[in-house]
Amino acid sequence: MGTLTELFAPERIAVIGATAREGSIGRAVMSNLKSDYNGEIVPVNPNYEEVMGFSCVGEIGEAAADMAVIVVPPKIALPAVEQAGEAGIKSVVVITAGFGETGGDGASREQELKEIAADYEMNLVGPNSLGIMSTSNGMNATFGPENAIPGELSFMSQSGAFITAVLDWANDEGVGFKDVASLGNKAVLDETDFVEHWGQDDETDVIIGYLEGISKGRDFIDTAREVTQDTPIVLVKSGRTDAGAQAASSHTGTIAGSEQAYEAGLDQAGVLRAESVQDLFDAAQMLANQPVPENNDVAVITNAGGPGVMSTDAVGDSGLEMATFDQETLDEFAEQLPPEGNIYNPVDIVGDADVERFRDALDIALADDNVGSAMVLSCPTAVLDYEQLAAETVKMREKHGKPVAACFMGGESVDASAEILSDAGIPNYFDPSRAIGALDSLWEYRQIQRRSYDEPAEFDVDREAAREILERVEEREDNRLGVEAMGLLEAYGIPMPESDIVESPDAALEVAKRIDGDVVMKIVSPDILHKSDIGGVKVGVSNDEIEDAFEDIVTRARNYQPDANLLGVQIQEMADLDSGTETIVGMNRDPQFGPLMMFGLGGIFVEVLEDTTFRVAPVSEAEAREMTEEIKTAPLLRGARGRDPADIEGIIETIQRLSQLVADFPAIMEFDINPLVATPDGVDAVDIRLTVDPEKL
Amino acid sequence: MGTLTELFAPERIAVIGATAREGSIGRAVMSNLKSDYNGEIVPVNPNYEEVMGFSCVGEIGEAAADMAVIVVPPKIALPAVEQAGEAGIKSVVVITAGFGETGGDGASREQELKEIAADYEMNLVGPNSLGIMSTSNGMNATFGPENAIPGELSFMSQSGAFITAVLDWANDEGVGFKDVASLGNKAVLDETDFVEHWGQDDETDVIIGYLEGISKGRDFIDTAREVTQDTPIVLVKSGRTDAGAQAASSHTGTIAGSEQAYEAGLDQAGVLRAESVQDLFDAAQMLANQPVPENNDVAVITNAGGPGVMSTDAVGDSGLEMATFDQETLDEFAEQLPPEGNIYNPVDIVGDADVERFRDALDIALADDNVGSAMVLSCPTAVLDYEQLAAETVKMREKHGKPVAACFMGGESVDASAEILSDAGIPNYFDPSRAIGALDSLWEYRQIQRRSYDEPAEFDVDREAAREILERVEEREDNRLGVEAMGLLEAYGIPMPESDIVESPDAALEVAKRIDGDVVMKIVSPDILHKSDIGGVKVGVSNDEIEDAFEDIVTRARNYQPDANLLGVQIQEMADLDSGTETIVGMNRDPQFGPLMMFGLGGIFVEVLEDTTFRVAPVSEAEAREMTEEIKTAPLLRGARGRDPADIEGIIETIQRLSQLVADFPAIMEFDINPLVATPDGVDAVDIRLTVDPEKL
Repeated sequence: MGTLTELFAPERIAVIGATAREGSIGRAVMSNLKSDYNGEIVPVNPNYEEVMGFSCVGEIGEAAADMAVIVVPPKIALPAVEQAGEAGIKSVVVITAGFGETGGDGASREQELKEIAADYEMNLVGPNSLGIMSTSNGMNATFGPENAIPGELSFMSQSGAFITAVLDWANDEGVGFKDVASLGNKAVLDETDFVEHWGQDDETDVIIGYLEGISKGRDFIDTAREVTQDTPIVLVKSGRTDAGAQAASSHTGTIAGSEQAYEAGLDQAGVLRAESVQDLFDAAQMLANQPVPENNDVAVITNAGGPGVMSTDAVGDSGLEMATFDQETLDEFAEQLPPEGNIYNPVDIVGDADVERFRDALDIALADDNVGSAMVLSCPTAVLDYEQLAAETVKMREKHGKPVAACFMGGESVDASAEILSDAGIPNYFDPSRAIGALDSLWEYRQIQRRSYDEPAEFDVDREAAREILERVEEREDNRLGVEAMGLLEAYGIPMPESDIVESPDAALEVAKRIDGDVVMKIVSPDILHKSDIGGVKVGVSNDEIEDAFEDIVTRARNYQPDANLLGVQIQEMADLDSGTETIVGMNRDPQFGPLMMFGLGGIFVEVLEDTTFRVAPVSEAEAREMTEEIKTAPLLRGARGRDPADIEGIIETIQRLSQLVADFPAIMEFDINPLVATPDGVDAVDIRLTVDPEKL
Repeated sequence: MGTLTELFAPERIAVIGATAREGSIGRAVMSNLKSDYNGEIVPVNPNYEEVMGFSCVGEIGEAAADMAVIVVPPKIALPAVEQAGEAGIKSVVVITAGFGETGGDGASREQELKEIAADYEMNLVGPNSLGIMSTSNGMNATFGPENAIPGELSFMSQSGAFITAVLDWANDEGVGFKDVASLGNKAVLDETDFVEHWGQDDETDVIIGYLEGISKGRDFIDTAREVTQDTPIVLVKSGRTDAGAQAASSHTGTIAGSEQAYEAGLDQAGVLRAESVQDLFDAAQMLANQPVPENNDVAVITNAGGPGVMSTDAVGDSGLEMATFDQETLDEFAEQLPPEGNIYNPVDIVGDADVERFRDALDIALADDNVGSAMVLSCPTAVLDYEQLAAETVKMREKHGKPVAACFMGGESVDASAEILSDAGIPNYFDPSRAIGALDSLWEYRQIQRRSYDEPAEFDVDREAAREILERVEEREDNRLGVEAMGLLEAYGIPMPESDIVESPDAALEVAKRIDGDVVMKIVSPDILHKSDIGGVKVGVSNDEIEDAFEDIVTRARNYQPDANLLGVQIQEMADLDSGTETIVGMNRDPQFGPLMMFGLGGIFVEVLEDTTFRVAPVSEAEAREMTEEIKTAPLLRGARGRDPADIEGIIETIQRLSQLVADFPAIMEFDINPLVATPDGVDAVDIRLTVDPEKL
């Protein structure tokens, strides 16, 4: 029983705008419902007495329905929905188009639709939807040309046309569905709602989808995390590339979130991301039908050396590895296989292998604890009966309870055996790389299931102090803050070199005397961006030089830009750049996912090599740790080339503390600690920049 | 007419070892030949009068044949080949196995086979081959279960089983071949010979292949370069990954060349490399049937927004770009398309589009000079006749002479239209990413055709001086040389800081006085690898300190390793590391491709980030230039972050000069210039290491 059970299992469906007119959407919906639906159908149309054999009512109030499908023209769609609400109907599918996707009037119509749905607490699909299906009660409440056949996949799509294409293909391939939902404009119900529902639906084994955007990123992450502990989710999220994002935005009109946010967010959500339609169904079919492997070691049993090598390459490209067999296994292979065979993986049982030799080899391999999954890879030969081989492959899969992929190569001669395999949930591919890719999805899902999601740490911070500093932006002309806001770091416990901002040479000297060794002096002004270029920064200033340096810095700044707002001069302890590594901890706010944390090594590593990593905030300790581990330059932090390792724990804590700060204050639009210098003894935030939206304070 | 024309077009084939015995290879070859071959067939077997209706001769000498197929047991295969040679037969296909692939006796048998073939100047295929086919004369001289259907692809494979699998599939798909060759152990004829032949064969439009290794890398590059000006070559080279390379080596017993060498070599050869069987045929079918595009801008015409976005992502992943249309084109679209459509690329002609609207949109798009190729992308709808759409797509492709890919999505409802498309050379895919991938292959091939291959420059060098320095290794216990061989650089005109190696403090001071500024001093010894660690290097030594430093360095070296062979102390001008960038120019010798040049930025960039690039030597100026451009850190050389650009021309010349050195001396097994310091004013080779094989001097 999921949250949308009533939506997918209504007892009486009213079709508002039903008609028998040839070529109309109303007719298509009526005839789709008529063909298989278990419940009752009530056409609603004041112009007719009956539609396609069903007696028609003039108003929805007379229909006594628990679901309404709206196919009336856009201008009368809102009253129709409202009347459904008045009639107590909670499940509404709005097929009518001409809402947000057209802009202008349509957009305000969509806003009104949302309000009506909220008033009546409706589960509303669409508008601009192809409709929904559920094979468990034969309901096809769409205007598409095909109904789905029953199966274990539930499928949502932001493109209705894609649903029609997929069903056309799937029905021929024997790929079945539990529920199908065309999301349309997602005015009310969105991907998160469907994921939550199907996650609780016992008849859905795998959730698949095509999305162009995710409406509420953080909600999606939190929901999907729970769901994917039991039910895998595989998505094509299009708009991955710059060109694609532009096309998606012109197609659905949503402001695109950044690909970095989607990549991080979908990964944090535990979603398997498919890059193409083929990948989507390869993964989904495997996940729906096979157990997950206990480890990532795969055994390949083949009668053909060349394709064996190809499959080994495919394993190398994946997250899987070629299994290393036990001695016992090797001994058994040595006994069973002809001497010209290969008992190591890929196991070459030689071109004259018959079904028995194949079966025995597969049996031996699957019995080895080192083997998590297996692939049967065969080329057609005179001595090999493909149908028998398929039957034996199915038996061995069942006997050992481990996933098995099939790559019976060939054309029509494979068809009968492919059907035997497919009936037992083993998809067959001509290309070894697809079979390995499908096994790899299982392993990827196994790792998602094993994840534990920790709560983000809550550090003891001084939120009020931070708020006061942020509020200063209200007094200013622009919304950028710099080192004058270093107090934010102090309030959130992020270490920094000793420093102060002063407005006179005397005060500068006083601060410098408190600090050990020479100091760095820097002009503080929101109006001067490239401080070094105008001589606004002096490094290694001794106490003797402080007062002259102060005058010099201020004079240069005034000369450069007479009307600049000068907030003072920062006097800062020198960071230990010799034994330290410069890193950047940053954040920007994504339109879909909210605060997105970034980490990378400073300077060229971020700017030229773009070696960065992202997570949607708030981040847990484990996520912050992963960030420090997955950049390519991570070995430099761990002490490559004879250096002492940097204080990685300090970096991890800084990422978490900044994550807490930006989660606490939605007004912070961007925040960069650059550099955060990490030495073996600790970390120091040397410089910061942030942008604040005063309206969100 | 190619170099192997007689091999593929014999008039009379003798089958040595022919028999009618059920299940024998001899019978399989006889019956395959019998079914379609245009020429005459002569079984050779002293035990029979006739075989399968053909009168049999006892000896090959009596056969008057111009080709021999050998199917006798391994032990009598050599005399059979020899007798064929004596009978004047130049074309020999050795199907018999039990040669090099079994090691031991088999390997020496293979050596003898090579000698016999050389003595009689035979074009010999195999041993351990499935055989060869040519559809132009119906010859199927293999023991496989299927004959090929005629077509434009010629196909070679190092795996016979893979040929049987491909033919089984291809015959059902209607994919045809001109010639097919199972390479077997490649004792005589190898991939280079077949590429050369098919490059000259008018009936071969595309050469495809499955290879596990390339026997003579440089020959292959030189041959393939010429061939690919007219005839595309698409190869799966397996053993790409570490696991795959290991499997390939155990399958065919060849010593694997490095993947870097294959990647560089195949690219330099102009070969399109496919990563899977699916990619191989997607590319081959497109290349065989469609023109190459004039530019990389693709137009997508679709009746479905979602799949349109997916195809845009696929374009983003490829070397193609989404075409930007002319104003004229946009105006025409605006006139023709409904207002809810999208006139920008991907062109959304909306779900109610009929065939005419599709055709007109395609016509308009293909007429735009900015459009190099197009994809027709459609989802099934009630108003769209797929067969008519296929016919119109074919017409538009022909009218405009530009390549067109098809993605008619759906299941069986697509089959009839897919056949119309396929007959006109337009493959249809369900997945937009495959259609775009196939168009991308055309564009990749277009770029290969446009390449000009320059001869490597021949610098005026002192080869004799270099030889003398290399020969010094003969006097030494190990074969490694270091800075004591800096004279090699001088001989080949590679700049280096002023330096000399001295054996006394006096001499050290004398050298230091000749050099401007402070110097670097370094112990010179083949036995001390980590010179810095033992205090064997001193940087920034002033003239006053020279003599003490000399004693200190030598003492430390003696203490560290009393029996080390000390060749002296190097006194070297200081390189300008502040304004310079450290690079590495290296070389190692690949077993298949010979000298392989490497370039990258020094230190962490090579060691941690592995940001390197490779070319098979000798390299042309253009190739050396590409090396400096294609590393990820290239912007650092060009002057990122406010630095002056380094002397890239100097780096390019150094790569070419080192390439000439290592090509001139096959005895040089490895050579590293590390670092080659590149400043804005020039380059300096600061340190070198090389390994020499004295036996090859």
